[in-house]
Amino acid sequence: MKALVYHGPGNKKFEEAPRPSLRDATDAIVRIAKTTICGTDLHILKGDLPSVAAGRILGHEGIGVIEQAGSGVGHFVKGDRVLISCITSCGRCENCRRSMPSHCEQGGWILGNTIDGTQAEFVRIPFADSSLYHIPEGADEDSMVMLSDILPTGFECGVLKGCVEPGDSVAIVGAGPVGLSALLTTQFYAPAHIIVIDLDDNRLEVAKQFGATSVVNSRDGKAAGKVMALTAGKGVDVAIEAVGMAATFGICQEIVAAGGHIANIGVHGTSSVLHLEDLWSKNVTITTRLVDAVTTPLLLRTVMAGRLKPKQLVTHHFALSDIITAYDTFGNAAREHSLKVILTNGPA
Amino acid sequence: MKALVYHGPGNKKFEEAPRPSLRDATDAIVRIAKTTICGTDLHILKGDLPSVAAGRILGHEGIGVIEQAGSGVGHFVKGDRVLISCITSCGRCENCRRSMPSHCEQGGWILGNTIDGTQAEFVRIPFADSSLYHIPEGADEDSMVMLSDILPTGFECGVLKGCVEPGDSVAIVGAGPVGLSALLTTQFYAPAHIIVIDLDDNRLEVAKQFGATSVVNSRDGKAAGKVMALTAGKGVDVAIEAVGMAATFGICQEIVAAGGHIANIGVHGTSSVLHLEDLWSKNVTITTRLVDAVTTPLLLRTVMAGRLKPKQLVTHHFALSDIITAYDTFGNAAREHSLKVILTNGPA
Amino acid sequence: MKALVYHGPGNKKFEEAPRPSLRDATDAIVRIAKTTICGTDLHILKGDLPSVAAGRILGHEGIGVIEQAGSGVGHFVKGDRVLISCITSCGRCENCRRSMPSHCEQGGWILGNTIDGTQAEFVRIPFADSSLYHIPEGADEDSMVMLSDILPTGFECGVLKGCVEPGDSVAIVGAGPVGLSALLTTQFYAPAHIIVIDLDDNRLEVAKQFGATSVVNSRDGKAAGKVMALTAGKGVDVAIEAVGMAATFGICQEIVAAGGHIANIGVHGTSSVLHLEDLWSKNVTITTRLVDAVTTPLLLRTVMAGRLKPKQLVTHHFALSDIITAYDTFGNAAREHSLKVILTNGPA
Amino acid sequence: MKALVYHGPGNKKFEEAPRPSLRDATDAIVRIAKTTICGTDLHILKGDLPSVAAGRILGHEGIGVIEQAGSGVGHFVKGDRVLISCITSCGRCENCRRSMPSHCEQGGWILGNTIDGTQAEFVRIPFADSSLYHIPEGADEDSMVMLSDILPTGFECGVLKGCVEPGDSVAIVGAGPVGLSALLTTQFYAPAHIIVIDLDDNRLEVAKQFGATSVVNSRDGKAAGKVMALTAGKGVDVAIEAVGMAATFGICQEIVAAGGHIANIGVHGTSSVLHLEDLWSKNVTITTRLVDAVTTPLLLRTVMAGRLKPKQLVTHHFALSDIITAYDTFGNAAREHSLKVILTNGPA
Repeated sequence: MKALVYHGPGNKKFEEAPRPSLRDATDAIVRIAKTTICGTDLHILKGDLPSVAAGRILGHEGIGVIEQAGSGVGHFVKGDRVLISCITSCGRCENCRRSMPSHCEQGGWILGNTIDGTQAEFVRIPFADSSLYHIPEGADEDSMVMLSDILPTGFECGVLKGCVEPGDSVAIVGAGPVGLSALLTTQFYAPAHIIVIDLDDNRLEVAKQFGATSVVNSRDGKAAGKVMALTAGKGVDVAIEAVGMAATFGICQEIVAAGGHIANIGVHGTSSVLHLEDLWSKNVTITTRLVDAVTTPLLLRTVMAGRLKPKQLVTHHFALSDIITAYDTFGNAAREHSLKVILTNGPA
Repeated sequence: MKALVYHGPGNKKFEEAPRPSLRDATDAIVRIAKTTICGTDLHILKGDLPSVAAGRILGHEGIGVIEQAGSGVGHFVKGDRVLISCITSCGRCENCRRSMPSHCEQGGWILGNTIDGTQAEFVRIPFADSSLYHIPEGADEDSMVMLSDILPTGFECGVLKGCVEPGDSVAIVGAGPVGLSALLTTQFYAPAHIIVIDLDDNRLEVAKQFGATSVVNSRDGKAAGKVMALTAGKGVDVAIEAVGMAATFGICQEIVAAGGHIANIGVHGTSSVLHLEDLWSKNVTITTRLVDAVTTPLLLRTVMAGRLKPKQLVTHHFALSDIITAYDTFGNAAREHSLKVILTNGPA
Repeated sequence: MKALVYHGPGNKKFEEAPRPSLRDATDAIVRIAKTTICGTDLHILKGDLPSVAAGRILGHEGIGVIEQAGSGVGHFVKGDRVLISCITSCGRCENCRRSMPSHCEQGGWILGNTIDGTQAEFVRIPFADSSLYHIPEGADEDSMVMLSDILPTGFECGVLKGCVEPGDSVAIVGAGPVGLSALLTTQFYAPAHIIVIDLDDNRLEVAKQFGATSVVNSRDGKAAGKVMALTAGKGVDVAIEAVGMAATFGICQEIVAAGGHIANIGVHGTSSVLHLEDLWSKNVTITTRLVDAVTTPLLLRTVMAGRLKPKQLVTHHFALSDIITAYDTFGNAAREHSLKVILTNGPA
Repeated sequence: MKALVYHGPGNKKFEEAPRPSLRDATDAIVRIAKTTICGTDLHILKGDLPSVAAGRILGHEGIGVIEQAGSGVGHFVKGDRVLISCITSCGRCENCRRSMPSHCEQGGWILGNTIDGTQAEFVRIPFADSSLYHIPEGADEDSMVMLSDILPTGFECGVLKGCVEPGDSVAIVGAGPVGLSALLTTQFYAPAHIIVIDLDDNRLEVAKQFGATSVVNSRDGKAAGKVMALTAGKGVDVAIEAVGMAATFGICQEIVAAGGHIANIGVHGTSSVLHLEDLWSKNVTITTRLVDAVTTPLLLRTVMAGRLKPKQLVTHHFALSDIITAYDTFGNAAREHSLKVILTNGPA
């Protein structure tokens, strides 16, 4: 089969790779129908994630059709249309039982990381019963791909951890796909104000269309002051960090109101300064979370009910065989005005 | 001054009454600008509430202007425009401190009940600092009146106690002003399905306009079965009782899903049958609540942000001097297609 | 092998039965080391549970050793010492994923109910990976048997659903094994007062030894009044129903304070009267729950740390072959002063 | 009257000061019976808190008797025995209404900070109704003094924010009075393991007597490694920082388990390094809180029920007139083996 293979920093090829086969009784083989590229894949290609070895097939998002199911798989049979979760969950270890499969003893984020991933014609999914979802009749396929990772990430790590409540002021720092996913799902809770901060005016324009009540370009280094002005000096109830840098995490600390939340989504490569000399008495809560993707059923219901429209995150479509071009488009987001790109694997 | 005085069951007059004066240092006198009539006032007039003595001025909702503030009042001065909460809160007793002022040792629901109320030109408000709210600049006055009681009641007793979550199925039994308030505020949480049940087709039509995804007329006694069909036999995650009868509470028990919530708002005059022989193993939660009106600041923020539009609950306007007609209009809701009526007290 | 077989109402035999074998890849066969009898087993023998067919091996509690594990079982191998949960959990369906395996689509309470149970030399456990627990090194075996059902039931359905908090007043109606399990585990949360109510003075004496701060014999029909007196007329923050009768559920309604909780554990055969005419304005929460046994890991940790001593629930020991006598002892609790009985299956 | 007056860094005198009088209708004057010294008072004397002006009477803890109550005070009359909360709460502003009076618009921590405090014969208490508590009949007076600040601080900022649950592993970094208060109150929730870390072997010995299951002396810089060893490499569910230094906050980051909590109590004078490069994917929650003292009623109930014994925190007693010596004893805790000191004001 064909697959996008990582060959060390800066080096990827769409090439022939061995088709996966069942290894454990609880595995399933899925024929990919659609997949996408994540910002994390770009990090891998820069060499930022040492857990990813050369030779690895990338990708942890997508939908497809069950090709084969192991003898221990009870919920899926050949031909079922499935949504692949970016998080593999054994469903049995203590972390899975407490709804934290991101730290599953045998799973977690392993697809396109420590085992081969979804940017391929076929993929092996361990613990298929608890790592796949049936696609409801009539569901839009592009929307389903957005439920593999990007929407649960924005929702769980940003909105749920941030404890957004009706009437709140929310600031989202970073208007990439993850920040925009937080923007879409924060509206589940009817906040009064949603301020989105980014360096890219195009993305801020998109944020406005997606429901931001104010946008702030942080180019001039005065974002925090502007947010304070927009909130009458009080700050925001919830600050969502969706970039992964010390500077943006710093903005969150400056703008959080007493009693407020800072919800970190960003993948950080370095430490940050925590201003405990100011924050110790401010009754704030700071959270981190690797997506658990436990809200996929909830998100599926909101999508099917038309309360959430993930399709608006998709800006480009490619054939899977054009994945190298797709990486280029996705990687040059400002130039291409790209958010998420969909890669389609033609019929068998 | 003029006021609507209760003279025992079936007997009310709009007549001259003594103008209230300060009694305690923490009191304020408010000149009423707008008030309204509650379903509870109709119950009082039927003689259902023995706590209300003959001679009582009715009414527990409204907005106005501070005429005089006691020496112990720190937050309000003469001329301030204020929203009157239906719940009087001392702010100091243990129940107030745990956000349950409905059971305040010296307050709770006393206006138009055990002390004179708001259907008058002036009213005395005990514990003014913790029982009044400043009206924000630019706020719509009719909307503010809806925040005295009806919206916090639907929101706190129905939506919050029901723990509505994104993607949930919600059923609201009863489409009167309280049920419709629950309908408006349940949409803060992006439920997937909202089914409204009532006997009156006009109210069901209103419910559709207010956001119900399905409506069921319960005239034929088959409402529960229809709700089960609408939810593929699973039942609803949240059933909100907004009538106050054994029969409607019974519907809630039939339609609640395993793990679901029944949130009672209705004022009940008799006991109900609780089917513990079915429910004991269904992991359900049943709640009751007298409104605490502690979410008024939250609701104010959602109104000012345009996320909640309470004005749509107002169907009729009268001068305060026409309150007898207003009672007739409000009391014949099916005939008059009335929801909430606004009574305006002319300028001083 | 030998097993206790139900042959219809009033009819049980300890007799030869076919030894179970693997049916699905996710099954395990466990050789029973110790088991016990539950009050529910007595209900079955009265014919109260139509789901239990004649020919069924009873029992849903116990510990043992893995004899054989299916190909889809990843966490257990032959020879592992295991605790059997009374709740079988597939770990994959929506109810399992939301920590409510009592309503697992393929599991829930099925052992000794719709499939053969643990009062036997061997038992087949479906979904072994998510329905068994490893027994920690050095654990007391009798204590482990108490973790199969009785302790999670008292803790989850009574204490957790009742939301016991430090300083609370708690009343437990019923001092059988389940009520006493609630009594032991409610002390996790440092309530100020724990009042236990029962008809049997011996059990009330046991309750005192187990930590009750007051006991009330309800024989005279004045239990509610006595509890009100003990709480200075305020009532209790949490009332736990551990009997399953309309009368005892009625006591809970009389003694619950404003803002309080009624947590039902009891298995009810009939409906109860719910006094909504009193309770509608009292801000109470009433819960029901079939045990989910999701707190087994938590309970295991408290047992191993010496914070919980389940062994004190065990009053009698028998060989498995003496199970008919054990049923008699357990079934005549008042006469025998019995709580839980342990049945030991001799070495293979 | 006599009072302990701050005269700038390093300079305090016990001297004659004007006796306070009522200023607002909601004030009360309290004659101090007993007071104590807080670690924060030592910080003030070092000049660390610029909000404290020279001439200020220090102290924010104590009990006494109402000498005079303003006309707006409804809950207290002359002669009432009262517990003084370290947090002054107006009971009316939005922060008070959401149970966060630490950020009360007109109150918060002001006693002995921006207004005169309790290390004096008399003190003026603003908003007396919501800032004082009646002392229950039969209460131990030394214990009551511990409820002004130290116990609510350890409980609210450490234990509640840390979300301690039965069976958890808890580490408390710092065994001073605040850390020991967290140690006492964390036992409300039956954690399996409580590890206390400090530099002072005497305090660690006290920690063992107070319920620590393990103690670690951090002198050798290897505390984190020792905690990891004690938890089998997993780390703790809750790490409570009770010192206020970057190094101790750093230990907390090293020992928190995935999914765990870091609850900061310490007053920090400088920023800390936050290792987001490790923590971003660890699903941790970090909290800060200035004590709100909203749990005083709960703590009072646990003390009166004998579940909490605050008296064990008191190591020394002095007359108020010996306060200079008391400061010396308290300030040399390691040498004097002192925890909290009680200062008694003789009868009038």
